[in-house]
Amino acid sequence: MTTLEKIIKGLSRLPGIGRKSAARIAYWLLKSDPNIARQLAEQLQTLHSSIKKCSVCGNYTEQDPCAICSNPNRDHSLICVVENPQDVQTIEETREYDGLYHVLGGAISPMNGVGAEDLTIGQLMQRVSDKRVREVILATNPTVEGDTTALYLQRMLKDRGISVSRLASGLPVGGDLEYADRMTLARSLKGRTIM
Amino acid sequence: MTTLEKIIKGLSRLPGIGRKSAARIAYWLLKSDPNIARQLAEQLQTLHSSIKKCSVCGNYTEQDPCAICSNPNRDHSLICVVENPQDVQTIEETREYDGLYHVLGGAISPMNGVGAEDLTIGQLMQRVSDKRVREVILATNPTVEGDTTALYLQRMLKDRGISVSRLASGLPVGGDLEYADRMTLARSLKGRTIM
Repeated sequence: MTTLEKIIKGLSRLPGIGRKSAARIAYWLLKSDPNIARQLAEQLQTLHSSIKKCSVCGNYTEQDPCAICSNPNRDHSLICVVENPQDVQTIEETREYDGLYHVLGGAISPMNGVGAEDLTIGQLMQRVSDKRVREVILATNPTVEGDTTALYLQRMLKDRGISVSRLASGLPVGGDLEYADRMTLARSLKGRTIM
Repeated sequence: MTTLEKIIKGLSRLPGIGRKSAARIAYWLLKSDPNIARQLAEQLQTLHSSIKKCSVCGNYTEQDPCAICSNPNRDHSLICVVENPQDVQTIEETREYDGLYHVLGGAISPMNGVGAEDLTIGQLMQRVSDKRVREVILATNPTVEGDTTALYLQRMLKDRGISVSRLASGLPVGGDLEYADRMTLARSLKGRTIM
């Protein structure tokens, strides 16, 4: 296999990149300033060594604890529980939340062999034993696995005198009733808010 | 900017990869075996140093002349002229062609400031002066620029006693008349073949 074929194969292993896109990227890199490929190579080289998981919340970080956990200006009485690190980024981008996070590392899924013991639930329980924690927001995905995980956590948390909430599920903003699926519409009816 | 943000930015510069896809790839790499990122880093690091342009045809290669130009079993009387190196790969994948190639490095495009002198047309003329060359196939894209380039080359080659052909343009195999655009349909009518 030639070097070019090897890199095309390497790139096509990345999520969302097929053989055609991989070839397009490889040829584009060859045509472009060699510094682009070199810089990307350096970033990939140091990726795992410079980025670790925060020992408190489990989010990816370069410092430990991470910038969110160690920020005194954030609301330490609120913990938002998410499945994956990228969910933290997604919620941060709304600029509507100033509490802390807890990354579970997935969701309970017997189909995929993921049980509660595979997630950072123990660490979460330890964190909520801190008297400052007032509310836990369950922001797992609105899927069977995410809902199962939320229900499991809600049961574990309910006797601790902490308010437990779940992200609202319903019609996407700008969406159209006509195109909503039955499940989403049912949820938005059930979760309707008083005007 | 954090290391993670830097690599997401770096990845999103690649063609066909937006910010969301770049973030998805970065998080996927973090979650995966560090060897995947390391291997890709090494491939990118050596990309430009190990791959050069063939001094004969202009295609990317690790040896000079390239494997195609130096293969005595290929038909050296045929030269297929393409715009870019990836076009060579695309034609090779059909397994229908066993001649040589010539990579122009683009197409004549006054709009983008690309003139005939920016392409490897001089080298092509030198190659066709070899008595062995019997036919030149113009495989530039069926676009305004590709057609202009083909017409330009045809005029330069016609007095040399070489047969000059152009890739057929028409309906894609498996396509539907109903969905063909007007230009493609017009071309397929003009280029109709006797049954």
